[in-house]
Amino acid sequence: MADPYPVTSRNRLRRRHERGHYDRETVHAILDAAMICHIAYVIDGQPFCTPTSFWREGDRLYWHGSSASRMVRAQAKGLPVCLTVTHHDAVVLARSGFHHSVNYRCVMAYGQARAVTDPQAKLRAMDAFIGRFYPGRAAALRPPTVQEIKAITILEMEIENAAAKIRATGVSDEEEDYVLPVWCAVLPLRTVLGEPEQCPRQLPGVTPDASGMAGFGPGRRFDEVMLESYRTAYPAANSPGAAPR
Amino acid sequence: MADPYPVTSRNRLRRRHERGHYDRETVHAILDAAMICHIAYVIDGQPFCTPTSFWREGDRLYWHGSSASRMVRAQAKGLPVCLTVTHHDAVVLARSGFHHSVNYRCVMAYGQARAVTDPQAKLRAMDAFIGRFYPGRAAALRPPTVQEIKAITILEMEIENAAAKIRATGVSDEEEDYVLPVWCAVLPLRTVLGEPEQCPRQLPGVTPDASGMAGFGPGRRFDEVMLESYRTAYPAANSPGAAPR
Repeated sequence: MADPYPVTSRNRLRRRHERGHYDRETVHAILDAAMICHIAYVIDGQPFCTPTSFWREGDRLYWHGSSASRMVRAQAKGLPVCLTVTHHDAVVLARSGFHHSVNYRCVMAYGQARAVTDPQAKLRAMDAFIGRFYPGRAAALRPPTVQEIKAITILEMEIENAAAKIRATGVSDEEEDYVLPVWCAVLPLRTVLGEPEQCPRQLPGVTPDASGMAGFGPGRRFDEVMLESYRTAYPAANSPGAAPR
Repeated sequence: MADPYPVTSRNRLRRRHERGHYDRETVHAILDAAMICHIAYVIDGQPFCTPTSFWREGDRLYWHGSSASRMVRAQAKGLPVCLTVTHHDAVVLARSGFHHSVNYRCVMAYGQARAVTDPQAKLRAMDAFIGRFYPGRAAALRPPTVQEIKAITILEMEIENAAAKIRATGVSDEEEDYVLPVWCAVLPLRTVLGEPEQCPRQLPGVTPDASGMAGFGPGRRFDEVMLESYRTAYPAANSPGAAPR
Protein backbone atom coordinates (compact mmCIF):
# COMPACT_ATOMS: atom_id res chain seq x y z
CA MET A 1 0.00 0.00 0.00
CA ALA A 2 1.74 3.17 -1.22
CA ASP A 3 2.08 6.16 1.11
CA PRO A 4 -0.79 5.42 3.50
CA TYR A 5 -2.34 7.69 6.11
CA PRO A 6 -1.68 6.33 9.61
CA VAL A 7 -4.30 3.80 10.64
CA THR A 8 -5.56 4.28 14.19
CA SER A 9 -8.74 3.37 16.03
CA ARG A 10 -10.26 6.56 14.59
CA ASN A 11 -10.08 5.67 10.89
CA ARG A 12 -9.70 1.88 10.89
CA LEU A 13 -12.64 0.16 9.18
CA ARG A 14 -14.46 -2.18 11.57
CA ARG A 15 -16.60 -3.80 8.90
CA ARG A 16 -16.05 -4.71 5.24
CA HIS A 17 -12.27 -4.46 5.36
CA GLU A 18 -12.09 -5.39 1.70
CA ARG A 19 -13.72 -2.05 0.88
CA GLY A 20 -11.14 -0.02 2.83
CA HIS A 21 -8.19 1.99 1.46
CA TYR A 22 -5.79 4.18 3.39
CA ASP A 23 -3.29 5.17 0.69
CA ARG A 24 -3.07 8.81 -0.35
CA GLU A 25 -3.60 8.10 -4.06
CA THR A 26 -7.02 6.52 -3.48
CA VAL A 27 -8.08 9.00 -0.80
CA HIS A 28 -7.03 12.03 -2.84
CA ALA A 29 -8.69 10.86 -6.07
CA ILE A 30 -12.04 10.66 -4.25
CA LEU A 31 -11.61 14.05 -2.58
CA ASP A 32 -10.41 15.78 -5.75
CA ALA A 33 -13.39 14.54 -7.80
CA ALA A 34 -15.80 16.45 -5.52
CA MET A 35 -16.88 20.02 -4.87
CA ILE A 36 -19.12 19.36 -1.86
CA CYS A 37 -18.28 17.63 1.42
CA HIS A 38 -20.13 17.22 4.71
CA ILE A 39 -18.37 18.27 7.89
CA ALA A 40 -19.23 16.91 11.35
CA TYR A 41 -18.32 19.03 14.37
CA VAL A 42 -19.55 19.47 17.90
CA ILE A 43 -20.73 22.58 19.76
CA ASP A 44 -21.63 22.12 23.44
CA GLY A 45 -22.09 18.38 22.94
CA GLN A 46 -24.44 18.81 19.98
CA PRO A 47 -23.21 17.33 16.67
CA PHE A 48 -23.77 19.29 13.46
CA CYS A 49 -23.40 18.04 9.89
CA THR A 50 -22.89 20.90 7.46
CA PRO A 51 -22.45 20.62 3.67
CA THR A 52 -19.93 22.97 2.11
CA SER A 53 -17.53 23.23 -0.79
CA PHE A 54 -13.90 22.39 -0.07
CA TRP A 55 -10.60 21.61 -1.75
CA ARG A 56 -7.27 19.95 -1.04
CA GLU A 57 -3.66 21.09 -1.16
CA GLY A 58 -1.26 18.26 -0.34
CA ASP A 59 -2.43 16.83 2.97
CA ARG A 60 -4.41 19.93 3.84
CA LEU A 61 -8.12 20.52 3.27
CA TYR A 62 -9.68 23.97 2.95
CA TRP A 63 -13.22 25.27 3.12
CA HIS A 64 -14.79 28.59 3.91
CA GLY A 65 -17.80 30.32 5.32
CA SER A 66 -19.24 33.60 6.41
CA SER A 67 -17.21 34.95 9.33
CA ALA A 68 -20.53 35.39 11.15
CA SER A 69 -21.68 31.78 10.82
CA ARG A 70 -21.92 29.48 13.79
CA MET A 71 -19.86 26.77 12.10
CA VAL A 72 -17.07 29.15 11.23
CA ARG A 73 -16.94 30.78 14.64
CA ALA A 74 -16.76 27.39 16.36
CA GLN A 75 -14.14 25.94 14.00
CA ALA A 76 -11.91 29.01 13.67
CA LYS A 77 -10.40 28.59 17.13
CA GLY A 78 -9.50 24.95 16.53
CA LEU A 79 -12.04 22.11 16.65
CA PRO A 80 -11.91 18.39 15.81
CA VAL A 81 -13.86 17.66 12.64
CA CYS A 82 -14.64 14.75 10.37
CA LEU A 83 -14.86 15.80 6.73
CA THR A 84 -16.66 13.30 4.50
CA VAL A 85 -16.97 13.09 0.72
CA THR A 86 -19.39 10.64 -0.88
CA HIS A 87 -19.88 9.80 -4.54
CA HIS A 88 -23.04 7.73 -4.93
CA ASP A 89 -22.30 5.69 -8.07
CA ALA A 90 -25.13 3.16 -8.34
CA VAL A 91 -27.95 1.30 -6.67
CA VAL A 92 -27.60 -2.48 -6.54
CA LEU A 93 -30.74 -4.63 -6.73
CA ALA A 94 -30.60 -8.13 -5.29
CA ARG A 95 -32.91 -11.10 -4.67
CA SER A 96 -33.15 -10.52 -0.91
CA GLY A 97 -33.53 -7.27 1.01
CA PHE A 98 -30.31 -8.05 2.82
CA HIS A 99 -28.18 -7.93 -0.34
CA HIS A 100 -29.60 -4.69 -1.73
CA SER A 101 -26.78 -2.21 -1.69
CA VAL A 102 -25.31 0.90 -3.25
CA ASN A 103 -22.03 1.47 -5.04
CA TYR A 104 -20.08 4.42 -3.74
CA ARG A 105 -16.69 6.02 -3.23
CA CYS A 106 -16.37 7.66 0.17
CA VAL A 107 -13.63 9.31 2.22
CA MET A 108 -13.77 10.20 5.89
CA ALA A 109 -10.90 12.53 6.86
CA TYR A 110 -10.09 13.54 10.44
CA GLY A 111 -8.22 16.53 11.83
CA GLN A 112 -8.43 19.83 13.67
CA ALA A 113 -10.09 22.72 11.86
CA ARG A 114 -8.70 26.21 12.34
CA ALA A 115 -8.91 29.58 10.57
CA VAL A 116 -6.22 30.74 8.13
CA THR A 117 -5.14 33.93 9.86
CA ASP A 118 -2.10 35.04 7.83
CA PRO A 119 -3.42 37.75 5.42
CA GLN A 120 -1.27 36.63 2.45
CA ALA A 121 -2.13 32.96 2.96
CA LYS A 122 -5.80 33.89 3.18
CA LEU A 123 -5.74 35.90 -0.07
CA ARG A 124 -3.92 33.08 -1.83
CA ALA A 125 -6.48 30.58 -0.52
CA MET A 126 -9.38 32.74 -1.73
CA ASP A 127 -7.92 32.66 -5.25
CA ALA A 128 -7.19 28.94 -4.99
CA PHE A 129 -10.82 28.34 -4.00
CA ILE A 130 -11.89 29.65 -7.43
CA GLY A 131 -8.87 28.30 -9.32
CA ARG A 132 -9.23 24.79 -8.03
CA PHE A 133 -12.76 24.48 -9.47
CA TYR A 134 -12.37 26.78 -12.49
CA PRO A 135 -8.69 26.86 -13.49
CA GLY A 136 -7.65 30.22 -14.91
CA ARG A 137 -10.88 31.94 -13.91
CA ALA A 138 -9.60 33.84 -10.86
CA ALA A 139 -7.43 36.07 -13.10
CA ALA A 140 -10.53 37.22 -15.03
CA LEU A 141 -12.51 38.24 -11.95
CA ARG A 142 -12.73 41.46 -10.00
CA PRO A 143 -10.39 40.97 -7.02
CA PRO A 144 -11.90 40.74 -3.52
CA THR A 145 -12.48 43.95 -1.59
CA VAL A 146 -11.24 44.53 1.96
CA GLN A 147 -14.82 44.11 3.19
CA GLU A 148 -15.25 40.81 1.33
CA ILE A 149 -11.98 39.44 2.73
CA LYS A 150 -13.20 40.34 6.21
CA ALA A 151 -16.62 38.79 5.65
CA ILE A 152 -15.15 35.40 4.73
CA THR A 153 -13.19 33.03 6.92
CA ILE A 154 -11.05 30.36 5.29
CA LEU A 155 -10.74 27.22 7.39
CA GLU A 156 -8.04 24.61 7.03
CA MET A 157 -7.29 21.19 8.40
CA GLU A 158 -4.26 18.95 8.16
CA ILE A 159 -5.47 15.41 7.43
CA GLU A 160 -4.35 13.41 10.48
CA ASN A 161 -6.13 10.20 9.46
CA ALA A 162 -8.30 9.26 6.54
CA ALA A 163 -10.02 6.19 5.19
CA ALA A 164 -11.58 5.58 1.81
CA LYS A 165 -14.36 3.04 1.43
CA ILE A 166 -15.38 1.84 -2.00
CA ARG A 167 -18.04 -0.53 -3.30
CA ALA A 168 -17.85 -0.96 -7.05
CA THR A 169 -19.06 -4.51 -7.68
CA GLY A 170 -22.19 -6.15 -9.02
CA VAL A 171 -25.17 -8.03 -7.66
CA SER A 172 -24.08 -10.53 -5.03
CA ASP A 173 -26.78 -12.93 -3.82
CA GLU A 174 -26.83 -16.08 -1.72
CA GLU A 175 -26.28 -19.05 -4.04
CA GLU A 176 -29.72 -20.54 -3.35
CA ASP A 177 -31.48 -17.25 -4.20
CA TYR A 178 -30.48 -17.09 -7.88
CA VAL A 179 -33.51 -19.27 -8.75
CA LEU A 180 -35.89 -16.47 -7.70
CA PRO A 181 -37.69 -14.68 -10.57
CA VAL A 182 -36.69 -11.17 -9.48
CA TRP A 183 -35.13 -8.65 -11.89
CA CYS A 184 -31.71 -7.70 -10.54
CA ALA A 185 -29.21 -5.18 -11.81
CA VAL A 186 -26.76 -2.43 -11.00
CA LEU A 187 -28.36 0.91 -11.91
CA PRO A 188 -25.53 3.43 -12.42
CA LEU A 189 -25.95 7.01 -11.23
CA ARG A 190 -24.13 9.94 -12.78
CA THR A 191 -24.17 13.59 -11.82
CA VAL A 192 -23.94 15.53 -15.07
CA LEU A 193 -23.80 19.16 -16.11
CA GLY A 194 -26.84 20.58 -17.90
CA GLU A 195 -27.19 23.34 -20.49
CA PRO A 196 -25.84 26.61 -19.05
CA GLU A 197 -28.43 29.19 -18.02
CA GLN A 198 -26.53 32.28 -19.04
CA CYS A 199 -26.62 35.42 -16.94
CA PRO A 200 -29.27 37.72 -18.48
CA ARG A 201 -26.75 40.55 -18.25
CA GLN A 202 -24.00 38.69 -20.13
CA LEU A 203 -21.86 41.09 -22.20
CA PRO A 204 -21.78 40.36 -25.93
CA GLY A 205 -18.78 38.38 -27.14
CA VAL A 206 -17.62 36.91 -23.82
CA THR A 207 -16.99 33.17 -24.02
CA PRO A 208 -16.85 30.34 -21.48
CA ASP A 209 -13.38 29.33 -22.70
CA ALA A 210 -11.80 32.70 -21.90
CA SER A 211 -13.38 32.55 -18.42
CA GLY A 212 -11.92 29.23 -17.28
CA MET A 213 -15.02 27.22 -18.15
CA ALA A 214 -13.86 25.26 -21.21
CA GLY A 215 -14.22 21.88 -19.47
CA PHE A 216 -17.79 22.40 -18.23
CA GLY A 217 -19.72 21.37 -21.34
CA PRO A 218 -23.29 20.06 -21.01
CA GLY A 219 -23.56 16.31 -20.52
CA ARG A 220 -20.16 15.92 -18.87
CA ARG A 221 -19.86 14.01 -15.59
CA PHE A 222 -19.30 16.46 -12.77
CA ASP A 223 -16.88 14.20 -10.86
CA GLU A 224 -14.71 13.86 -13.96
CA VAL A 225 -14.75 17.61 -14.58
CA MET A 226 -13.82 18.27 -10.94
CA LEU A 227 -10.89 15.84 -11.08
CA GLU A 228 -9.70 17.29 -14.40
CA SER A 229 -9.94 20.86 -13.05
CA TYR A 230 -8.07 19.82 -9.97
CA ARG A 231 -5.23 18.29 -11.93
CA THR A 232 -5.01 21.34 -14.18
CA ALA A 233 -4.90 23.67 -11.18
CA TYR A 234 -2.42 21.52 -9.24
CA PRO A 235 -0.21 19.77 -11.80
CA ALA A 236 1.93 18.37 -8.96
CA ALA A 237 -1.14 17.39 -7.00
CA ASN A 238 0.62 15.09 -4.60
CA SER A 239 3.38 17.45 -3.51
CA PRO A 240 2.34 18.93 -0.17
CA GLY A 241 2.11 22.71 -0.35
CA ALA A 242 2.02 22.79 -4.15
CA ALA A 243 0.56 26.10 -5.29
CA PRO A 244 -2.36 26.23 -7.71
CA ARG A 245 -1.69 27.50 -11.23
CA MET B 1 -45.74 29.08 7.50
CA ALA B 2 -47.69 25.82 7.56
CA ASP B 3 -46.95 23.24 10.26
CA PRO B 4 -43.37 24.23 11.11
CA TYR B 5 -40.85 22.34 13.20
CA PRO B 6 -40.06 24.23 16.41
CA VAL B 7 -37.34 26.81 15.87
CA THR B 8 -34.72 26.83 18.63
CA SER B 9 -31.10 27.92 18.85
CA ARG B 10 -30.20 24.49 17.43
CA ASN B 11 -31.89 24.81 14.04
CA ARG B 12 -32.38 28.57 13.61
CA LEU B 13 -30.44 29.91 10.61
CA ARG B 14 -27.90 32.54 11.66
CA ARG B 15 -27.08 33.63 8.13
CA ARG B 16 -29.11 33.99 4.94
CA HIS B 17 -32.50 33.88 6.63
CA GLU B 18 -34.18 34.26 3.26
CA ARG B 19 -32.91 30.77 2.37
CA GLY B 20 -34.40 29.15 5.48
CA HIS B 21 -37.56 27.05 5.76
CA TYR B 22 -38.91 25.26 8.81
CA ASP B 23 -42.25 23.96 7.52
CA ARG B 24 -42.77 20.22 7.24
CA GLU B 25 -43.81 20.35 3.57
CA THR B 26 -40.51 21.88 2.46
CA VAL B 27 -38.36 19.81 4.81
CA HIS B 28 -40.08 16.54 3.86
CA ALA B 29 -39.89 17.15 0.10
CA ILE B 30 -36.10 17.51 0.35
CA LEU B 31 -35.72 14.42 2.54
CA ASP B 32 -38.05 12.28 0.44
CA ALA B 33 -36.19 13.08 -2.81
CA ALA B 34 -33.00 11.47 -1.43
CA MET B 35 -31.63 8.00 -0.75
CA ILE B 36 -28.37 9.04 0.94
CA CYS B 37 -27.86 11.27 3.97
CA HIS B 38 -24.84 12.13 6.12
CA ILE B 39 -25.13 11.63 9.88
CA ALA B 40 -22.98 13.47 12.42
CA TYR B 41 -22.53 11.88 15.84
CA VAL B 42 -19.95 11.94 18.60
CA ILE B 43 -18.02 9.11 20.27
CA ASP B 44 -15.72 10.11 23.14
CA GLY B 45 -15.60 13.71 21.93
CA GLN B 46 -14.66 12.73 18.36
CA PRO B 47 -17.18 13.74 15.67
CA PHE B 48 -17.91 11.29 12.86
CA CYS B 49 -19.74 11.99 9.60
CA THR B 50 -21.10 8.80 8.04
CA PRO B 51 -23.05 8.52 4.78
CA THR B 52 -25.91 6.05 4.75
CA SER B 53 -29.28 5.44 3.15
CA PHE B 54 -32.33 6.49 5.15
CA TRP B 55 -36.05 7.13 4.86
CA ARG B 56 -38.86 9.00 6.59
CA GLU B 57 -42.15 7.97 8.15
CA GLY B 58 -44.11 10.96 9.40
CA ASP B 59 -41.75 12.83 11.71
CA ARG B 60 -39.48 9.84 12.15
CA LEU B 61 -36.30 9.05 10.22
CA TYR B 62 -34.91 5.54 9.83
CA TRP B 63 -31.56 4.18 8.74
CA HIS B 64 -29.70 0.96 9.32
CA GLY B 65 -26.30 -0.63 9.62
CA SER B 66 -24.45 -3.74 10.54
CA SER B 67 -25.08 -4.59 14.19
CA ALA B 68 -21.27 -4.84 14.54
CA SER B 69 -20.49 -1.36 13.21
CA ARG B 70 -19.14 1.37 15.44
CA MET B 71 -21.80 3.85 14.35
CA VAL B 72 -24.63 1.45 15.07
CA ARG B 73 -23.31 0.38 18.44
CA ALA B 74 -22.88 3.99 19.55
CA GLN B 75 -26.29 5.14 18.27
CA ALA B 76 -28.34 2.12 19.35
CA LYS B 77 -28.35 3.11 23.02
CA GLY B 78 -29.54 6.66 22.30
CA LEU B 79 -27.25 9.38 20.93
CA PRO B 80 -27.82 12.93 19.64
CA VAL B 81 -27.34 13.11 15.89
CA CYS B 82 -27.66 15.61 13.08
CA LEU B 83 -28.90 14.01 9.88
CA THR B 84 -28.24 16.07 6.76
CA VAL B 85 -29.49 15.69 3.19
CA THR B 86 -28.03 17.79 0.39
CA HIS B 87 -29.09 18.05 -3.23
CA HIS B 88 -26.44 19.94 -5.18
CA ASP B 89 -28.45 21.50 -8.01
CA ALA B 90 -26.06 23.86 -9.80
CA VAL B 91 -22.87 25.87 -9.72
CA VAL B 92 -23.26 29.63 -10.03
CA LEU B 93 -20.55 31.62 -11.81
CA ALA B 94 -20.20 35.31 -10.99
CA ARG B 95 -17.93 38.26 -11.82
CA SER B 96 -16.18 38.26 -8.44
CA GLY B 97 -14.94 35.34 -6.38
CA PHE B 98 -17.18 36.48 -3.56
CA HIS B 99 -20.40 35.94 -5.52
CA HIS B 100 -19.57 32.48 -6.85
CA SER B 101 -22.05 30.13 -5.30
CA VAL B 102 -23.92 26.86 -5.63
CA ASN B 103 -27.61 26.14 -5.82
CA TYR B 104 -28.76 23.49 -3.41
CA ARG B 105 -31.59 22.09 -1.33
CA CYS B 106 -30.45 20.99 2.10
CA VAL B 107 -32.06 19.76 5.33
CA MET B 108 -30.40 19.43 8.72
CA ALA B 109 -32.54 17.38 11.12
CA TYR B 110 -31.81 16.96 14.81
CA GLY B 111 -32.86 14.30 17.28
CA GLN B 112 -31.84 11.30 19.36
CA ALA B 113 -30.94 8.12 17.50
CA ARG B 114 -31.91 4.77 19.01
CA ALA B 115 -32.33 1.18 17.87
CA VAL B 116 -35.75 -0.23 16.92
CA THR B 117 -35.92 -3.10 19.41
CA ASP B 118 -39.49 -4.42 19.00
CA PRO B 119 -39.17 -7.48 16.70
CA GLN B 120 -42.38 -6.77 14.73
CA ALA B 121 -41.50 -3.10 14.27
CA LYS B 122 -38.03 -4.09 13.11
CA LEU B 123 -39.35 -6.56 10.52
CA ARG B 124 -41.83 -3.99 9.26
CA ALA B 125 -39.02 -1.40 9.01
CA MET B 126 -36.80 -3.81 7.07
CA ASP B 127 -39.57 -4.23 4.48
CA ALA B 128 -40.25 -0.49 4.45
CA PHE B 129 -36.56 0.14 3.76
CA ILE B 130 -36.92 -1.72 0.45
CA GLY B 131 -40.50 -0.58 -0.23
CA ARG B 132 -39.76 3.09 0.25
CA PHE B 133 -37.15 3.05 -2.53
CA TYR B 134 -38.64 0.33 -4.75
CA PRO B 135 -42.40 0.24 -4.15
CA GLY B 136 -43.82 -3.28 -4.49
CA ARG B 137 -40.41 -4.93 -4.65
CA ALA B 138 -40.27 -6.29 -1.08
CA ALA B 139 -43.09 -8.76 -1.87
CA ALA B 140 -41.02 -10.30 -4.70
CA LEU B 141 -37.92 -10.90 -2.58
CA ARG B 142 -36.81 -13.81 -0.42
CA PRO B 143 -37.76 -12.79 3.15
CA PRO B 144 -34.95 -12.08 5.65
CA THR B 145 -33.55 -14.99 7.66
CA VAL B 146 -33.21 -14.98 11.44
CA GLN B 147 -29.47 -14.49 11.02
CA GLU B 148 -29.92 -11.52 8.67
CA ILE B 149 -32.40 -9.87 11.04
CA LYS B 150 -29.84 -10.24 13.82
CA ALA B 151 -26.98 -8.91 11.68
CA ILE B 152 -28.81 -5.66 10.95
CA THR B 153 -29.79 -2.92 13.34
CA ILE B 154 -32.48 -0.45 12.36
CA LEU B 155 -32.02 2.98 13.90
CA GLU B 156 -34.73 5.59 14.26
CA MET B 157 -34.96 9.19 15.28
CA GLU B 158 -37.91 11.46 15.95
CA ILE B 159 -37.20 14.82 14.28
CA GLU B 160 -37.06 17.30 17.16
CA ASN B 161 -35.94 20.26 15.04
CA ALA B 162 -35.17 20.65 11.39
CA ALA B 163 -34.25 23.41 9.00
CA ALA B 164 -34.22 23.45 5.22
CA LYS B 165 -31.92 25.82 3.37
CA ILE B 166 -32.43 26.44 -0.33
CA ARG B 167 -30.61 28.50 -2.93
CA ALA B 168 -32.33 28.36 -6.30
CA THR B 169 -31.62 31.73 -7.90
CA GLY B 170 -29.34 33.05 -10.63
CA VAL B 171 -26.13 35.03 -10.90
CA SER B 172 -26.13 37.93 -8.47
CA ASP B 173 -23.25 40.39 -8.84
CA GLU B 174 -22.46 43.83 -7.46
CA GLU B 175 -24.02 46.42 -9.76
CA GLU B 176 -20.64 47.89 -10.77
CA ASP B 177 -19.28 44.44 -11.75
CA TYR B 178 -21.70 43.78 -14.63
CA VAL B 179 -19.37 45.69 -16.98
CA LEU B 180 -16.65 43.01 -16.58
CA PRO B 181 -16.11 40.74 -19.62
CA VAL B 182 -16.47 37.47 -17.70
CA TRP B 183 -18.77 34.67 -18.86
CA CYS B 184 -21.33 34.06 -16.10
CA ALA B 185 -24.04 31.44 -15.84
CA VAL B 186 -25.84 28.93 -13.71
CA LEU B 187 -24.65 25.44 -14.68
CA PRO B 188 -27.34 22.96 -13.61
CA LEU B 189 -26.36 19.60 -12.15
CA ARG B 190 -28.55 16.53 -12.35
CA THR B 191 -28.01 13.07 -10.96
CA VAL B 192 -29.48 10.67 -13.50
CA LEU B 193 -29.92 6.93 -13.83
CA GLY B 194 -27.83 5.15 -16.46
CA GLU B 195 -28.47 2.01 -18.50
CA PRO B 196 -29.01 -0.95 -16.16
CA GLU B 197 -26.15 -3.44 -15.90
CA GLN B 198 -28.21 -6.58 -15.58
CA CYS B 199 -27.18 -9.37 -13.24
CA PRO B 200 -25.31 -11.94 -15.37
CA ARG B 201 -27.42 -14.64 -13.71
CA GLN B 202 -30.76 -13.00 -14.56
CA LEU B 203 -33.48 -15.62 -15.18
CA PRO B 204 -35.08 -15.45 -18.63
CA GLY B 205 -38.38 -13.57 -18.78
CA VAL B 206 -38.13 -11.57 -15.56
CA THR B 207 -38.90 -7.89 -16.04
CA PRO B 208 -38.09 -4.69 -14.12
CA ASP B 209 -41.78 -3.76 -13.98
CA ALA B 210 -42.79 -6.92 -12.12
CA SER B 211 -39.96 -6.30 -9.64
CA GLY B 212 -40.94 -2.79 -8.51
CA MET B 213 -38.50 -1.04 -10.86
CA ALA B 214 -40.89 0.45 -13.46
CA GLY B 215 -39.95 4.04 -12.56
CA PHE B 216 -36.18 3.61 -12.79
CA GLY B 217 -35.69 4.09 -16.54
CA PRO B 218 -32.34 5.31 -17.88
CA GLY B 219 -32.02 9.09 -18.13
CA ARG B 220 -34.46 9.81 -15.32
CA ARG B 221 -33.46 12.23 -12.54
CA PHE B 222 -32.77 10.24 -9.39
CA ASP B 223 -34.26 12.85 -7.03
CA GLU B 224 -37.52 12.79 -8.99
CA VAL B 225 -37.60 8.99 -9.00
CA MET B 226 -36.97 8.91 -5.25
CA LEU B 227 -39.78 11.40 -4.54
CA GLU B 228 -42.15 9.51 -6.83
CA SER B 229 -41.27 6.17 -5.17
CA TYR B 230 -41.76 7.74 -1.78
CA ARG B 231 -45.21 9.05 -2.62
CA THR B 232 -46.22 5.69 -4.10
CA ALA B 233 -45.01 3.85 -1.00
CA TYR B 234 -46.58 6.34 1.42
CA PRO B 235 -49.71 7.75 -0.25
CA ALA B 236 -50.53 9.65 2.95
CA ALA B 237 -46.96 10.84 3.30
CA ASN B 238 -47.64 13.52 5.84
CA SER B 239 -49.63 11.46 8.32
CA PRO B 240 -47.27 10.51 11.11
CA GLY B 241 -47.01 6.76 11.45
CA ALA B 242 -48.53 6.05 8.02
CA ALA B 243 -47.58 2.57 6.90
CA PRO B 244 -45.88 1.97 3.55
CA ARG B 245 -47.89 0.24 0.82
